[in-house]
Amino acid sequence: MSDPLRIALAGLGTVGTGVIELLETNRSTIERRAGRALQIVAVNARDRTRDRGVDLSPFAWVDDMQAMAARADVDVVLELVGGSDGPALTLARAALDEGKAFVTANKAMIAHHGLSLAEQAALRGVPLKFEAAVAGGIPVVKGLREGAAANRIERIYGILNGTCNYILSEMERTGADFDAMLAEAQAKGFAEADPTFDIEGVDAAHKLAILSAIGFGARVDFANVDATGIGEVRAADITQAGTLGYVVRLVGIASIDESDGTPALLQRVRPCLVARGHPLAAVTGPTNAVVAEGNFSGRLLFQGAGAGAGPTASAVVADLIDIARGDLGAPFSVPVEELETFPPADPGNRIGRDYIRFTVTDRPGVLAEITAAMRDAEVSIESLIQRGRDHEGGEVLVAMVTHEGPERCVTKALELLDGSPSLTAPPLVMPILKD
Amino acid sequence: MSDPLRIALAGLGTVGTGVIELLETNRSTIERRAGRALQIVAVNARDRTRDRGVDLSPFAWVDDMQAMAARADVDVVLELVGGSDGPALTLARAALDEGKAFVTANKAMIAHHGLSLAEQAALRGVPLKFEAAVAGGIPVVKGLREGAAANRIERIYGILNGTCNYILSEMERTGADFDAMLAEAQAKGFAEADPTFDIEGVDAAHKLAILSAIGFGARVDFANVDATGIGEVRAADITQAGTLGYVVRLVGIASIDESDGTPALLQRVRPCLVARGHPLAAVTGPTNAVVAEGNFSGRLLFQGAGAGAGPTASAVVADLIDIARGDLGAPFSVPVEELETFPPADPGNRIGRDYIRFTVTDRPGVLAEITAAMRDAEVSIESLIQRGRDHEGGEVLVAMVTHEGPERCVTKALELLDGSPSLTAPPLVMPILKD
Repeated sequence: MSDPLRIALAGLGTVGTGVIELLETNRSTIERRAGRALQIVAVNARDRTRDRGVDLSPFAWVDDMQAMAARADVDVVLELVGGSDGPALTLARAALDEGKAFVTANKAMIAHHGLSLAEQAALRGVPLKFEAAVAGGIPVVKGLREGAAANRIERIYGILNGTCNYILSEMERTGADFDAMLAEAQAKGFAEADPTFDIEGVDAAHKLAILSAIGFGARVDFANVDATGIGEVRAADITQAGTLGYVVRLVGIASIDESDGTPALLQRVRPCLVARGHPLAAVTGPTNAVVAEGNFSGRLLFQGAGAGAGPTASAVVADLIDIARGDLGAPFSVPVEELETFPPADPGNRIGRDYIRFTVTDRPGVLAEITAAMRDAEVSIESLIQRGRDHEGGEVLVAMVTHEGPERCVTKALELLDGSPSLTAPPLVMPILKD
Repeated sequence: MSDPLRIALAGLGTVGTGVIELLETNRSTIERRAGRALQIVAVNARDRTRDRGVDLSPFAWVDDMQAMAARADVDVVLELVGGSDGPALTLARAALDEGKAFVTANKAMIAHHGLSLAEQAALRGVPLKFEAAVAGGIPVVKGLREGAAANRIERIYGILNGTCNYILSEMERTGADFDAMLAEAQAKGFAEADPTFDIEGVDAAHKLAILSAIGFGARVDFANVDATGIGEVRAADITQAGTLGYVVRLVGIASIDESDGTPALLQRVRPCLVARGHPLAAVTGPTNAVVAEGNFSGRLLFQGAGAGAGPTASAVVADLIDIARGDLGAPFSVPVEELETFPPADPGNRIGRDYIRFTVTDRPGVLAEITAAMRDAEVSIESLIQRGRDHEGGEVLVAMVTHEGPERCVTKALELLDGSPSLTAPPLVMPILKD
């Protein structure tokens, strides 16, 4: 058996301690699969005195996290600190600079700086790995990078944020409104005290940017992920969707749009209507699920726990085992210099169906005004539901589902209605996920 | 860029021609991901004259399949001929003997001879790969071997046969009986003219034996997979299951049983009752799905097309790309000499719930006889349904669901009833899948 793979671990939160526990609990299994031992040699965290429920005495304590990169007794730096920039990024650059392998669960950092880190890793010929950055314990980075490697990927989409999925599926189950379910999610530990990144779709957008880079062999382009969160989804929307045979899920979708002649990349995170028979409709609670559609494989679904100490540690250690086994594959599936640059796609090109919900004043002629705007923008309405007064006041909900058509027509219709005194709030548009 | 990976392809059926089409269609994607070209240099099939819709002129035609192994211009032998023994096995042995990498989609051969082939591959230090042998296009061999590598796997189960799943889900949808749906499956190309291997669970057993070897780091033990097919499942069983909140699926399950002190391996294929909320219940048609439960990852689900030229070719070429990238990992996740030998588990140890259906004569006292046997064997009945006369004659169906208990009690109860003139056919027992 070869020498152990020596690891410096920065960050001893739940995931960091989870990794220590996993390496201890599954030691013999891992050694046999990796062909060598995985050995933590040094650890760092902000507070040395805190009791984390794991024995840190076998490891060297390093006060200055950045000093880990230069240690001669370290082969891999494992970063579980978080934050897109700051100390995590400094450590990543220093570690790669020193020719160390680098493993992270940091989706924000990879979404923002993954490309330049991959360039640095390629220059030094060392691995850069981030399985845990996407969809927690689900081996979907490997699934896309290697399992589906023979395919031209046509579309990638999935439920990438467990907090939002918990809230939406609980809203569906209980009929409660968003605010109540967010509070419940926070009480149960499924949402953070400041849930902004989750509920506004930023976290899902980080993961989507990483997935689309791998799936399409594209340069990571987080800046062009267009994200809308779930804060505007009301209990009434979920009820209406249910009546029509759909559930509401926050879905990240990436696809290549060739309708303007040159391939362009559409990346968006949106609350969507998902038909009840679709596998994503069955995904409830904090579970994540990713679908990749390959031109030969067809639809592949990967599902599992999207967060949590155990699942995230499982993904982190899978990366460490790969490194121990000598896997030097390109972080984004093809060598970084061969990644393609796709311009962002015009979302108006999208051909699909939409759910549109208006909140309007309860007076005559409002419905006529809305349907006239739809007609003028050439949006064809498949079904229209006018719902009685909301308990909140004189407000009435008007929900509709469009026939398949270009998204730009829907946008145009909403522009025509913009500023209308009949509308009491901005309309909510939710795309209907294409099967 | 390195030299191309040179492939000899034996077998030009739908999968073989699918591989040729895939390598042509996705050539540039594959080259970038593999870091080199994948090039078929030689092909072989029984009939040279048949038009397969692909251009074979770039490849050397080899009349004697076995001659492929010795060709100096070949790095990998790809076997898509099929059959557990015979020419496929001879070719595998010859190829490994010559120090060639060997890739196959042949589940029967790997289930029967995978262990000795892995030994041969280890001796020569060459890769042996068979992603396509399990669950078609789903990268579940890689998912288990690498993606879940950090975990002690506690249970593996899944829908491993598309033919059976098509028949069962169509029986559910239409209310028709097994024979009618088998005929329909054959007409639609989802079942073969001789469907024995599929409907008797042998095909699923092959795949399960491979999965459990990988998941548990166990020596492949196909002989101890206990398989029951779906031929005895009646429309009435599916209706009863539905009433109770379940669907019927043919499930392969493998787990480690430690209840007798030493770890033993339980491997079985059974029609099972699956609760409607479980992800496997949503798997309909010829789709496959595999669940692996890791001690840190929790439940991982891999789902996709279980067969077909495109998906199978996708899995085959993923193996070829891995080989091109220099992946020399152990075929069954740990070096073959370190694979453990587990004795077969006593299925009587299983603690669970069961659905039991009797077909009985329509006369007084039959129900009392059955329930007395249950009482004497200490089987606790959760619910019991007596269904009116079947249209087939004076036969009556009695279905029940047991409380959780040892399977040996159910077996004992059936022994007590064995030979009873009240029973017109052997009872059908379907385990209820534990969540």
